[in-house]
Amino acid sequence: MTGFFTEENSAQTVNARMGDDIDPRLKTIMAALVKHLHAFVKDVELTEDEWNSAIAFLTKTGQICSTERQEYILLSDVLGVSMLVDAINNRRPDGATENTVFGPFHVKDAPVRQMGDSISLDGKGEPCLFTGRVLDLDGNPVKGAKIDVWSDNADGYYDVQQPDSQPKWNNRGIFVTGSDGAYSFVGIKPVSYPIPDDGPVGKMLAALGRHPFRPAHTHFLVTAPGYQKLVTHTFVGDDPYLASDTVFGVKETLVAPFEPNPDGVTKWVSKFDFILVPET
Amino acid sequence: MTGFFTEENSAQTVNARMGDDIDPRLKTIMAALVKHLHAFVKDVELTEDEWNSAIAFLTKTGQICSTERQEYILLSDVLGVSMLVDAINNRRPDGATENTVFGPFHVKDAPVRQMGDSISLDGKGEPCLFTGRVLDLDGNPVKGAKIDVWSDNADGYYDVQQPDSQPKWNNRGIFVTGSDGAYSFVGIKPVSYPIPDDGPVGKMLAALGRHPFRPAHTHFLVTAPGYQKLVTHTFVGDDPYLASDTVFGVKETLVAPFEPNPDGVTKWVSKFDFILVPET
Repeated sequence: MTGFFTEENSAQTVNARMGDDIDPRLKTIMAALVKHLHAFVKDVELTEDEWNSAIAFLTKTGQICSTERQEYILLSDVLGVSMLVDAINNRRPDGATENTVFGPFHVKDAPVRQMGDSISLDGKGEPCLFTGRVLDLDGNPVKGAKIDVWSDNADGYYDVQQPDSQPKWNNRGIFVTGSDGAYSFVGIKPVSYPIPDDGPVGKMLAALGRHPFRPAHTHFLVTAPGYQKLVTHTFVGDDPYLASDTVFGVKETLVAPFEPNPDGVTKWVSKFDFILVPET
Repeated sequence: MTGFFTEENSAQTVNARMGDDIDPRLKTIMAALVKHLHAFVKDVELTEDEWNSAIAFLTKTGQICSTERQEYILLSDVLGVSMLVDAINNRRPDGATENTVFGPFHVKDAPVRQMGDSISLDGKGEPCLFTGRVLDLDGNPVKGAKIDVWSDNADGYYDVQQPDSQPKWNNRGIFVTGSDGAYSFVGIKPVSYPIPDDGPVGKMLAALGRHPFRPAHTHFLVTAPGYQKLVTHTFVGDDPYLASDTVFGVKETLVAPFEPNPDGVTKWVSKFDFILVPET
């Protein structure tokens, strides 16, 4: 009799069980998953107690998930998997604005506002004028680009995290460019905040000697007909967590200027152009 | 500014975040996990839709777990991880009885019975005399060895899966060897059965073109003072699933004879010696 599982042939034996008529992409993914998972177990010679701990951790991570909380996305985020998937799927030519993680706090169908409007509805925080242009790779303005923006408030919470104490659509809005590609709106200089750290992922971060903070950032989803979707943030350059974002979302090109505003109407001004890539 | 996450440096960047004063074994395990996990994502260039499917699968697998059901152990089992951990942690010299997976159906503190007693309390199935000796590596009998045995009934269910229709401790018992190391008891020739396949793991097996069956087997946990714990099964050699155990638990040396019993008292006899390894 041959073909039984051994420590030596483990991954090949598991993968040989897959049927011939299954989805070929699923087969590719599962074969690679089993290969790497077995290599991990062999590399560290995982003990039975450690295996039990892993089973308990994965189970708890699933069980704390609810319609309001997705602990497995947090786990993917803090292990750098979310950013890696984002990087692989959004490779762009030099000069184009880079992507970063979407995050869990976007809400569809925010109000469309007029250029110059304020999205800060609770009156908290340091007012900042966000301004710049949406351009193509040759520097031409992109007309009709939708800039969907969202950020936390001065206490570090998105409106959806505090539905009872923040006005609906606080620090959110959609702005549509005209023929000059320009945009401007008033928001706040965002603040750093911890990801939810009272669950299994927070405990894991503590055990790894890692903090749960994201550096201050403003989210942007920029779309325009004929161009690839851009999901990104701009970051505040003097944030203490800039070099240690717990979800690894920072890219050097996404650190935006936040400077005192000479016009005096808002305390700060942040100028940033979004450079889009044509659809292929 | 340097040290930001890129597609190229992803695993190193994540691992560099770990603190210096953390548990060194945890650090080793997590560094290897991140390395292999990122290598997997890069190998297959996981798409955003596939990542979403993975998050949903892992979440559901946690959420179906309860005090009666452990879907993450099933997942580990069908991916061969449980058997790999078992193999790594139970390497034995030639001649010793090999380990296999413990499984979820053992119950502590089964009744201690007399040699020759029957453990088949529901009267179902084909009676089989299980007999043999517990020996050391030199062939000397091991006195005072506890043989804890459990199997499914003729319908393919353990008593704990059918608490209302099977007698308590059906097909379970503990037998203690005397100075000859011998054991004998009457059970049934076990039958093959599917692992629970109505959850995410069952759906995954179906998508992979795999069946959910385990070949017929009888579980043994053999312990004796001064010897390493032995967790194993004996398998019925003519089972149609012998070469395709969905949890990869079969080893060639664990296929036991099941032969017509010449004494006529039971239909079958299965002789098997358990060879124990001294504690180190």
